[in-house]
Amino acid sequence: MTAELICVGTELLLGDIVNTNAAYLARECAKLGLSVYYQSVVGDNRRRLSSAIRTARKRSDIILLCGGLGPTQDDLTKETAAKVLKRQLVEDAGTKEHIRKFMEQYLRWHPEEKMTENNWKQALVPEGALILENENGTAPGLILEEEESTLILLPGPPGEMIPLFEKKVYPYLREMQPEMICSRTIKICGMGESQAETKISDLIKKQKNPTIATYAKTGEVHIRITAKAKEEEEAEELLQPVAAELEKRFGTYIYTEDEHVTLETAVVELLKERGMTLTTVESCTGGALSARIIDVPGASQVLKQGFVTYSNKAKRNLVQVKKSTLKEYGAVSEKCAKEMAKGGCLVTGADAAVSVTGFAGPEGGEEAPVGTVFIGCCLRGKTAVKEYHFNGNRSSVREQAVANALVLLRECILKS
Amino acid sequence: MTAELICVGTELLLGDIVNTNAAYLARECAKLGLSVYYQSVVGDNRRRLSSAIRTARKRSDIILLCGGLGPTQDDLTKETAAKVLKRQLVEDAGTKEHIRKFMEQYLRWHPEEKMTENNWKQALVPEGALILENENGTAPGLILEEEESTLILLPGPPGEMIPLFEKKVYPYLREMQPEMICSRTIKICGMGESQAETKISDLIKKQKNPTIATYAKTGEVHIRITAKAKEEEEAEELLQPVAAELEKRFGTYIYTEDEHVTLETAVVELLKERGMTLTTVESCTGGALSARIIDVPGASQVLKQGFVTYSNKAKRNLVQVKKSTLKEYGAVSEKCAKEMAKGGCLVTGADAAVSVTGFAGPEGGEEAPVGTVFIGCCLRGKTAVKEYHFNGNRSSVREQAVANALVLLRECILKS
Repeated sequence: MTAELICVGTELLLGDIVNTNAAYLARECAKLGLSVYYQSVVGDNRRRLSSAIRTARKRSDIILLCGGLGPTQDDLTKETAAKVLKRQLVEDAGTKEHIRKFMEQYLRWHPEEKMTENNWKQALVPEGALILENENGTAPGLILEEEESTLILLPGPPGEMIPLFEKKVYPYLREMQPEMICSRTIKICGMGESQAETKISDLIKKQKNPTIATYAKTGEVHIRITAKAKEEEEAEELLQPVAAELEKRFGTYIYTEDEHVTLETAVVELLKERGMTLTTVESCTGGALSARIIDVPGASQVLKQGFVTYSNKAKRNLVQVKKSTLKEYGAVSEKCAKEMAKGGCLVTGADAAVSVTGFAGPEGGEEAPVGTVFIGCCLRGKTAVKEYHFNGNRSSVREQAVANALVLLRECILKS
Repeated sequence: MTAELICVGTELLLGDIVNTNAAYLARECAKLGLSVYYQSVVGDNRRRLSSAIRTARKRSDIILLCGGLGPTQDDLTKETAAKVLKRQLVEDAGTKEHIRKFMEQYLRWHPEEKMTENNWKQALVPEGALILENENGTAPGLILEEEESTLILLPGPPGEMIPLFEKKVYPYLREMQPEMICSRTIKICGMGESQAETKISDLIKKQKNPTIATYAKTGEVHIRITAKAKEEEEAEELLQPVAAELEKRFGTYIYTEDEHVTLETAVVELLKERGMTLTTVESCTGGALSARIIDVPGASQVLKQGFVTYSNKAKRNLVQVKKSTLKEYGAVSEKCAKEMAKGGCLVTGADAAVSVTGFAGPEGGEEAPVGTVFIGCCLRGKTAVKEYHFNGNRSSVREQAVANALVLLRECILKS
């Protein structure tokens, strides 16, 4: 079965908001095994929206429309869909009651506001629609079944759309799907995308079911294997040998096979397993490395403190980098990165310390080009330092430095 | 003139990545006064991509295609566009040379990798194309002018696409536009969106040319005024009185009227003006505040060092929080935030210190609900602390804490 997304809203066309709804719905459709070949965005405009719906009906089984269900005059997704399907709008008593209750509760906490007439517009629904009550708002979701294809209308705010989709739409679509889709994401780090692809080009060439695709991320590559079958078990059986082959080829480059595990989560878990604590000593990344680690719930078990040693003086005072090192080699040097990492361990007593020092640009880079970054990792007395040359602007250099610091740390732990 | 966006990539159809490129390009088109009525996403598929290009050519003057220019077999935007326009692909000597140099440089620092044959594919360009050299990658941007409409092909990675658009495509499109659009963005902080909107609801009601729109951001609100006219001067004249009125109404809540100036940049500039240095002492934000400040080029002048004091012990050892404070009030308390900020100044000799301590979730929050955050600011001996209750998940709470730390710091500097 095929599905298609139409997101409605002038704020999307103007770029005022990023279309996270499309990414969410696309991901859910992929999970359900629905093939999505098209996504589109149109404004709150009757003519263009009707035409988008008509085109979608010719090519897709399920059409998910998102946005434009609100109370204002601009919101016309429901009206337009009803017109295309030649259905009348009728008042739904249940929805009207829901709106009344919802607004009553809302106004209790917002006494300065008042209920406006246009809220009742949301109680009008196309004849014969399945109505999905919206717990977090006044506009209900709507399912309009037709022989040609099924239209599913959802409110635009993610806080309303996502719970509605999860609770009502997902089970509805699950029911319709005859085929099972299973996929696995194998995440690797320490290897570039083209190198990773070359390593498995023979598998990619002969792929069919399961399919194999690679995705380049900063400092990592994700490989997704997807299999289709009648039963879940059968799909899993198709996946298994391909996953095993990838495991053989990539070995310890694989840091997880769990879609929800990030690189920082994997590194924190690894430190926990080994019973190790960590400290960070950051210059050009300015705290972004520790921030990324602390984004992992439970990181407090491994990371107790970190240093942002942006100036030379801070490098000396906080983590005991030698004056002579800074003078002779400069702050962006192998020697400085080494002393920063060593000093981090020494000062805090942590088992491991990661240091980052480099020229993130736009200025600087007299001694070495902008993008030059040294990353050090001191682990139980041994210190490794690597030199990197990243492309891109200041933010991008810093992001790459953070990712590669995690990669180096992981490497050092695995080797220890 | 109308423009239309086609983003190409299976990773978008699967929801693996969020389409931030579409938002960026849409915003830039709006700035240029180009009307965007359609955005679409198609996968790396010849048939569907050709059909999307054909449809777009019938209805839009400019077609921006983004993604699918890379070296792999999946990347086929250029090939498909050439086919639709009936143009041959020819090797471009300049691009080949650029790829050679780019890869040479890359491989110098990545000796473990090697140049793969498929990289040369990127030197093939449709006959007669304007070639836009990509400083940050190997795939050039391409402009294909036709009588019907102009196709502009851009690489998908934002780090390549955005600089290319800014430097080459924006000026090209600017040249084509007959009408001048001038807009100004007034950025305010320390006030919520509805409060800001209420303050100017009379202006919003009677808006026409210029138009006024408000956008809620984390910790800030942006107000955009946009005027259209034949000449730039005329548009500027339309803007001026509205901007002056907003200045009168918002006063020091306005931190900049420069679209490119971020809150962190404004705060760094303010510190520089006053000749003040800053240190950060972060618990739940884990370095994200210092990282955001250090994202500003030249931040080294004001921020010399920062502390990530995630554990209680680190709070005591690094910035002298009292044991009794932690015992009696806990780490997430007004008193602890105050001592963290004071200690930051004391230990480093900085003129100002900002501290953040809170429950970001998902766990914790025994003494106070998740989302409770205390932010302290010590400035030349005086310390202010504010208590916040943020909604949202761990990342969102931390992001709001960082933004509000900048807002509080700015307030304290202005009051000092």
